[in-house]
Amino acid sequence: MKHLWHNCHAVTMKDGKYSIIEDAALVTYAGRIEWIGPYQQLKSIPYDVEVDLDGAWVTPGLVDCHTHLVFGGDRSGEFEQRLQGVSYAEIAAQGGGIASTVRATREAPEDELLASATRRAEQLLRDGVTTLEVKSGYGLDLSSERKMLRVARRLGENLPLTVRATCLAAHALPPEYAGRADDYITHICDELLPALASEGLVDAVDAFCEHLAFSPAQVERVFKVAKGLGLPVKLHAEQLSSLHGSSLAARYQALSADHLEFMTEEDAIAMAAAGTVAVLLPGAFYLLRETQLPPIEALRRHSVPMAVASDLNPGTSPALSLRLMLNMACTSFRLTPEEALAGATLHAARALGLADSHGSLEVGKTADFVAWDIQRPAELAYWLGGDLPKRVIRHGKEINFG
Amino acid sequence: MKHLWHNCHAVTMKDGKYSIIEDAALVTYAGRIEWIGPYQQLKSIPYDVEVDLDGAWVTPGLVDCHTHLVFGGDRSGEFEQRLQGVSYAEIAAQGGGIASTVRATREAPEDELLASATRRAEQLLRDGVTTLEVKSGYGLDLSSERKMLRVARRLGENLPLTVRATCLAAHALPPEYAGRADDYITHICDELLPALASEGLVDAVDAFCEHLAFSPAQVERVFKVAKGLGLPVKLHAEQLSSLHGSSLAARYQALSADHLEFMTEEDAIAMAAAGTVAVLLPGAFYLLRETQLPPIEALRRHSVPMAVASDLNPGTSPALSLRLMLNMACTSFRLTPEEALAGATLHAARALGLADSHGSLEVGKTADFVAWDIQRPAELAYWLGGDLPKRVIRHGKEINFG
Ligand SMILES: [Zn+2]
Ligand SMILES: [Zn+2]
Repeated sequence: MKHLWHNCHAVTMKDGKYSIIEDAALVTYAGRIEWIGPYQQLKSIPYDVEVDLDGAWVTPGLVDCHTHLVFGGDRSGEFEQRLQGVSYAEIAAQGGGIASTVRATREAPEDELLASATRRAEQLLRDGVTTLEVKSGYGLDLSSERKMLRVARRLGENLPLTVRATCLAAHALPPEYAGRADDYITHICDELLPALASEGLVDAVDAFCEHLAFSPAQVERVFKVAKGLGLPVKLHAEQLSSLHGSSLAARYQALSADHLEFMTEEDAIAMAAAGTVAVLLPGAFYLLRETQLPPIEALRRHSVPMAVASDLNPGTSPALSLRLMLNMACTSFRLTPEEALAGATLHAARALGLADSHGSLEVGKTADFVAWDIQRPAELAYWLGGDLPKRVIRHGKEINFG
Repeated sequence: MKHLWHNCHAVTMKDGKYSIIEDAALVTYAGRIEWIGPYQQLKSIPYDVEVDLDGAWVTPGLVDCHTHLVFGGDRSGEFEQRLQGVSYAEIAAQGGGIASTVRATREAPEDELLASATRRAEQLLRDGVTTLEVKSGYGLDLSSERKMLRVARRLGENLPLTVRATCLAAHALPPEYAGRADDYITHICDELLPALASEGLVDAVDAFCEHLAFSPAQVERVFKVAKGLGLPVKLHAEQLSSLHGSSLAARYQALSADHLEFMTEEDAIAMAAAGTVAVLLPGAFYLLRETQLPPIEALRRHSVPMAVASDLNPGTSPALSLRLMLNMACTSFRLTPEEALAGATLHAARALGLADSHGSLEVGKTADFVAWDIQRPAELAYWLGGDLPKRVIRHGKEINFG
């Protein structure tokens, strides 16, 4: 069935710019955009269904390119304890922090993980997200990482969402490898990653490069194996200190380097040369009350594409709205609303290796879009919280939220 | 019709504490709570309708005790300009800032103001708010202030919300009084306030005490007239500097003093003695990237009740979610989740003079409550954004969001 969508304005995000078409029309067929342009220029394309969008502003479906939304338990109890004055050390002594999430995730049956992840993914979908990334990294052993990645795949089958699964086995050191980080990396390289890749569960490989996680040398061992398996890489880098993980990521043509508060101009130059996307995570910055801003001016100067993501995770960013992250990217990081929207559409798609098919409204791309009841695009970043009225269309079909 | 609500846990917020009743039941009749307690202790009260809440956590309906949600236009264009590097001075020279909202509000027909305010109030309602305050203060002349307050009244008639209307004519100096602040105060005292009060449009009187607004002496003139009219007062105080407006407010037994970043311990002592609520507005703090925290420890030490509100306004807090403000009160101001929830229920009701009838789940109070699909109360402050699944009950009737 061919659809004509009209009575709308389009914010196409072509080349990462608003690229506004006022009084626009879109023709979609077989899940793709067949035509887009000013309604006036629409010649007599035959169509089966005509949809009046009532003056809405149409953007690409939002892309959340960095989430950890599959996890057991949550950490609201710990959130409360910390505010009651319990120290990090005491919480760690109780088995709290990421260790508690690893324990709960290992213990949870796959269907239980799927159920809780579905609730969170649905919240993002209702917020206008039609593509998202899910990382493993709370399993930290072969069967638990497999379980998480299977949940990611099933999310994509069950919901009207495009889901990319990233293996983040090198997220933290599992308790059974305490004091033996190199041995755990060996396990990832020799067994875990080849097995999960061969099962078709992995779209990309990520690691956490930080003093409290893995060293650049350890990360590089994982990257080499990923490359050998034909998998693209990404990296959590420069969140708390400057180890030049982002330059390392660039050397491996990483899709993205993420967080980046402590990156340097040299890192930005390396990323620009490699085409690596800078993924900014303002939710974690806000929740941790960080003060070190990522070097936005350096990223702009070297034309490093910037994405904005929720980092949805139970510890440092329990964020259920990507649109709220646009506000935080503007408020805390001083991105413009246009940059923020590019960061949650085209550049986010690029960070997932999907820039050819997703992230902007262009002929031939997937017909994923959102029709927002707003007066100007900047409102997407301006309003703080809430649930802006919208219609969400994925693969050319409107989603009915019941 | 008598309703029995069961299969739930209740967070009653009696005395501003969680006061949890596990496996609770509520009986409501004629819009009030007739009985609440452990399900086991429920004797054979006859009822007409039984509602299974499916294990939900029930809290009082949220109370947003400080909003400016009636306004013309919005300031998303200005938000975008500022992030594009346009200076405050240039924006002011263009007629931007509050002046643009005053102009748009004066120009808008009442029904247009009602339509846009309704959309914003509905967002708060969907977020669990059943009582809210609306301030005037963008009209700044008799007919425009009347128009705003009439919209507030009509919101309360049209929506399943309890709305309290506050006259904030002393919000800013209207252009026609430039350089004549005392004359404007005289106009408010002699004409505007008596007229609007006699029309029954005013539940409380507020003012903005700040170097860039009105002096304590000017505020006091307004307070004296309000007292003479039998109206309680409130005050925007200590947001940007320390003028001891909160102590002044306490001398007039104000319902609340609001913002308070720069208040002193002496102010806290005065407020405690007067029973004046400290209304914290973390949305504006966040959006303005303030660094001066309100003195939470001093407020705790002197047992000043703390409320948390959205401050929903087009310039400094376009916040459409009160639950997000709970997270911000915890994250930025270090309130506990329990304090934050008390601040959006019982203490917020107190800040509106409604503590006898609203803000906690107690026999005889209004049957306004929210049944949240969560596992523990701290989740209300923990999750960042999104739209937590919930059922909203007002005056004992469930709201159908269609
Ligand atoms: Zn992450
Ligand atoms: Zn205010």
